[in-house]
Amino acid sequence: MDKYKRVIRTDMADESRVVGAGTQTRVQHGGLGEGIRIEKDGDNDVAITRVHVDTPEGEQKVGKPIGSYITMDIPMVNERSRDLYEKACRMLARELERLIHLNKNDTVLIVGLGNWNVTADALGPKVAQSVLVTRHIYEYLPKEIDETERPVCAISPGVLGITGIETGHIIKGIVDNVKPALVIAIDALASRSMSRVNTSIQLANTGIAPGSGVGNKRMALNKESLGVPVVAIGIPTVVDAATMASDVLDLIMDEMMKQAGQGTEFYNMLMNIDRDEKYRMIIELLEPYSGNLVVTPKDTDDTIDYLSKLVANGINMALHENIGPEDVDRFIQ
Amino acid sequence: MDKYKRVIRTDMADESRVVGAGTQTRVQHGGLGEGIRIEKDGDNDVAITRVHVDTPEGEQKVGKPIGSYITMDIPMVNERSRDLYEKACRMLARELERLIHLNKNDTVLIVGLGNWNVTADALGPKVAQSVLVTRHIYEYLPKEIDETERPVCAISPGVLGITGIETGHIIKGIVDNVKPALVIAIDALASRSMSRVNTSIQLANTGIAPGSGVGNKRMALNKESLGVPVVAIGIPTVVDAATMASDVLDLIMDEMMKQAGQGTEFYNMLMNIDRDEKYRMIIELLEPYSGNLVVTPKDTDDTIDYLSKLVANGINMALHENIGPEDVDRFIQ
Amino acid sequence: MDKYKRVIRTDMADESRVVGAGTQTRVQHGGLGEGIRIEKDGDNDVAITRVHVDTPEGEQKVGKPIGSYITMDIPMVNERSRDLYEKACRMLARELERLIHLNKNDTVLIVGLGNWNVTADALGPKVAQSVLVTRHIYEYLPKEIDETERPVCAISPGVLGITGIETGHIIKGIVDNVKPALVIAIDALASRSMSRVNTSIQLANTGIAPGSGVGNKRMALNKESLGVPVVAIGIPTVVDAATMASDVLDLIMDEMMKQAGQGTEFYNMLMNIDRDEKYRMIIELLEPYSGNLVVTPKDTDDTIDYLSKLVANGINMALHENIGPEDVDRFIQ
Amino acid sequence: MDKYKRVIRTDMADESRVVGAGTQTRVQHGGLGEGIRIEKDGDNDVAITRVHVDTPEGEQKVGKPIGSYITMDIPMVNERSRDLYEKACRMLARELERLIHLNKNDTVLIVGLGNWNVTADALGPKVAQSVLVTRHIYEYLPKEIDETERPVCAISPGVLGITGIETGHIIKGIVDNVKPALVIAIDALASRSMSRVNTSIQLANTGIAPGSGVGNKRMALNKESLGVPVVAIGIPTVVDAATMASDVLDLIMDEMMKQAGQGTEFYNMLMNIDRDEKYRMIIELLEPYSGNLVVTPKDTDDTIDYLSKLVANGINMALHENIGPEDVDRFIQ
Repeated sequence: MDKYKRVIRTDMADESRVVGAGTQTRVQHGGLGEGIRIEKDGDNDVAITRVHVDTPEGEQKVGKPIGSYITMDIPMVNERSRDLYEKACRMLARELERLIHLNKNDTVLIVGLGNWNVTADALGPKVAQSVLVTRHIYEYLPKEIDETERPVCAISPGVLGITGIETGHIIKGIVDNVKPALVIAIDALASRSMSRVNTSIQLANTGIAPGSGVGNKRMALNKESLGVPVVAIGIPTVVDAATMASDVLDLIMDEMMKQAGQGTEFYNMLMNIDRDEKYRMIIELLEPYSGNLVVTPKDTDDTIDYLSKLVANGINMALHENIGPEDVDRFIQ
Repeated sequence: MDKYKRVIRTDMADESRVVGAGTQTRVQHGGLGEGIRIEKDGDNDVAITRVHVDTPEGEQKVGKPIGSYITMDIPMVNERSRDLYEKACRMLARELERLIHLNKNDTVLIVGLGNWNVTADALGPKVAQSVLVTRHIYEYLPKEIDETERPVCAISPGVLGITGIETGHIIKGIVDNVKPALVIAIDALASRSMSRVNTSIQLANTGIAPGSGVGNKRMALNKESLGVPVVAIGIPTVVDAATMASDVLDLIMDEMMKQAGQGTEFYNMLMNIDRDEKYRMIIELLEPYSGNLVVTPKDTDDTIDYLSKLVANGINMALHENIGPEDVDRFIQ
Repeated sequence: MDKYKRVIRTDMADESRVVGAGTQTRVQHGGLGEGIRIEKDGDNDVAITRVHVDTPEGEQKVGKPIGSYITMDIPMVNERSRDLYEKACRMLARELERLIHLNKNDTVLIVGLGNWNVTADALGPKVAQSVLVTRHIYEYLPKEIDETERPVCAISPGVLGITGIETGHIIKGIVDNVKPALVIAIDALASRSMSRVNTSIQLANTGIAPGSGVGNKRMALNKESLGVPVVAIGIPTVVDAATMASDVLDLIMDEMMKQAGQGTEFYNMLMNIDRDEKYRMIIELLEPYSGNLVVTPKDTDDTIDYLSKLVANGINMALHENIGPEDVDRFIQ
Repeated sequence: MDKYKRVIRTDMADESRVVGAGTQTRVQHGGLGEGIRIEKDGDNDVAITRVHVDTPEGEQKVGKPIGSYITMDIPMVNERSRDLYEKACRMLARELERLIHLNKNDTVLIVGLGNWNVTADALGPKVAQSVLVTRHIYEYLPKEIDETERPVCAISPGVLGITGIETGHIIKGIVDNVKPALVIAIDALASRSMSRVNTSIQLANTGIAPGSGVGNKRMALNKESLGVPVVAIGIPTVVDAATMASDVLDLIMDEMMKQAGQGTEFYNMLMNIDRDEKYRMIIELLEPYSGNLVVTPKDTDDTIDYLSKLVANGINMALHENIGPEDVDRFIQ
């Protein structure tokens, strides 16, 4: 019971802040309810799960607003196979295309969220720097534009600690001036699961909810706040240290219980430990580091560069008719 | 005659795009007119010239809008003396204070113009990254704020080629949301004079006029466009190659004339060369590189880092009552 | 018992790879033996522990070669107080001076170990880039040298994965050519203790032992391998994820035992768990991430910049007679 | 006469310091002599000139040691066509293969000369960082090596001002330890010709002569100094400002003479100006900036990134049998 509750709690508290993550697993365990559709696609290289929340009932069950949540798991992305990279670029483009509905000359604003001075949080700014930007050519050199191209602009607003300005306010000001038909916001995420760090791409057409990610962004970027649809792309780049410690502890206790054997007193004692209480203990123990400690792969600097190019390729292909699967890395700035 | 005309022309065409530069020299040669006041201050270390354009007549004579234009020449700044550095920080703070008029809790927005990917154009972004940012502490942790501090925020909007968005539109959107009482805009400038490159700081309380600088910014940032006063801080970091070649040619021809002696035929022939025509010839010769070639000191990467800290110190001291002359480099991010 | 053993084991296995770390604590618990002297110095701001291993007996007890091991703990370094920063620079200089014995014009080679592309491993290269380098002025412009200055040179050899060359071989080649009287090697370390990450500076006059740190360096840099004395300066910048999980688990189990009460069955059961076995379980669970996952503060990028300047200041003051306590940051490149 | 002499002089004094540059043009004007062979190859996209100095007589005529000097001119490289980029990579690989003679498992050391902190001088370090490094895999994981691969290692030694150590001494030390069969040294060059900046790749199998380039390297890297053959790859990234001014002045004077008409007094007067004297005047005028001012394209930061990848691709393809024309950018780090 405690365990179930806790899983729900952490999923709700942690994963629901993360674009689409984990949703599908929990829902499947709970049985498929009204207002929720789940699709599996892809293969072992790039496994795709789409969760569609269709009704207010679904919304309540999942704890996420009506919309589509897509997770692309690419477990072997760190092997750096060129073929896998190109495949992931193409599949990301395809999934993005499912979420965006644009007319021919609609402008798109790419927003690279996060702090470029912090490796694990620099994904968004790196993508914004890498995508093909064309809006100024449209405005100032319209003859140089291939008519299949689309006006795209991009900004990295920085984070509150760098600018002193709420990120949402910067973006709102730009949206009001540029009037894009769509915002695509990219951000590094904090994951609940070590296996997802730097291997999973998460998409949602409901924007980015407040409080997510490595930094602390307060104002939501979504249709309500900005007045235009917001597609979010996130990649988990860190795990909170307390979360990791808690997970390890759960696994160890499960193992101990298995070794003790069901029915033994030790088994029952371990069973009775309130795991919520245990999580609070960890948080306390990790204080004063807690809020500040993250778990990250050693080679994350390099990997985030790699993933930012992958995402930028996917965006380029999804937005420009004249950029195709054969153009991987060709229009990366 | 030709020569005089050309100097005027290039000053008007080139230097008038540059914050305050050169104004004082020309005006002095032409005699001090109505509506213009010139003050000299400082010493050989940091020589200060303030040109005040007070009336529409002055405006017309100088070709610059009513306002104050200050040039700080620090010819030995490259010797990297710590004492000179600290002195320059303090004097920049003092000159800035003369240009800005703020109430106690007025918010200031620092705008770092230019392209962070181009060494010679990265001054603005580097300053914006280095100044003390406090506005978010005001907003979210008001108790942590010393009451002598001021809310300051900072942004580097990037350039058109990176974002696809007119810089002015980004800043306008932010100003509308943040509602600062003052904007301070920092930019790298193209100079007409090699001796000013990386040695001169130029201030003006009339904003930044379009087309100036290393990049190409189109929309003016000033009280008309943004609705709040704009103080501009500029440092020349490059000289256009054609300008340099033309200057060298002038000097060589002057030398030849001197050697030939007044009254000789050769003297007269050289005298009769239309130097405007000569400048056009150089432009033609340097085509196709012309628009693209700049002259810059070899060690400019390092120097621009150094100068950006100097400017950030000056801004910090000018804006925060509790940051004094003894705090050089103490609040540099 | 198990616990004690494990602490010894991990101290020996992990901490003994780390310059001087933890030594003092263990030794004190074990009682002060022959051939080991411990000195405490400093204060709460900068707490200094010096462990001197004087004899082969001491060597065997501590598991480290004869020499001096100094730890400077600066627990509040992240508060970024200027006064504390300056104090730490001065005290590092003083501790360094105790370890090095140089004649007037002896050359010193600074070696910045680690991978500049990996944030947590970039400390060494950042220090090597920041220290004052004077040897070339000595060689080529001897008249410009103040006679109290010393010839200092600096190199960041990169890591095996970048160069394809064993770091030790690169350094050996340079030492053979430059013939310094002393090598100072700076490296980022992996710590066993979260509280030491980015807050502790560790010195030793016995060189850097193989296998330590964030990267993997194989050949020892010490008097045997290089032919000149090697002083090592290390700062723990990460904790291995398995170590952190294991520590948390120990603390949780201690807490559970305390709550159960001595003498209870649960207490005894937990007491009997083989903590070595438990550590192996964690390693297994964290596989396949294990070797690759580190725990690090979120703001580590910025902090490592800060600490690298602190170390560079300490080195500058220790090596150059004419650089004094009042010169903090003055000769940082 | 003066003019001819000067051209010779500057070619000899300036261009002879540059890998292979200009040689072919001058030699052709002077007539093909004994001991010199010139081959033209390639097309308008990538124009190749190979000058082979075969005998001591040739050596004396050209002022360069016996060896092969190859210039690849890629005038449209800045248009960033993907096809041209891939073609240039392949052709560079082919030209390199002509210069290097290696046995199957011979080790190659890549040396990236220049200062990574100075944009125009960072070409070498960028190439060294981008090439495929395999030697450590050979040493430590021999089974993971495809037998068509070759052991390659790479180092960027920095410059004298950063390390305090003569670059040649660092490289000598590494060569003595690593014992490669070949060194490939990459460096940014100072060009005499604006049209070559960032558009020309220069190869030579005679090493890199002292004093060349943007920085100041004193000790030659060649077979005599290192004991192994040295192939040099250079790209002109700047023009010295005095050189540019002098060139412009020559062109202007030529134009004036043409306009005056042969036989006129003005023509004769201009004809009689000692152009060496004029060059000295320019040097004087540009003092105190002279040694320090360079002319460079505004977008040089970005272009040097691009060219460094092009060179790294060429090296990868030339050194590894299993990397082919279809692998452009695939093994770039």
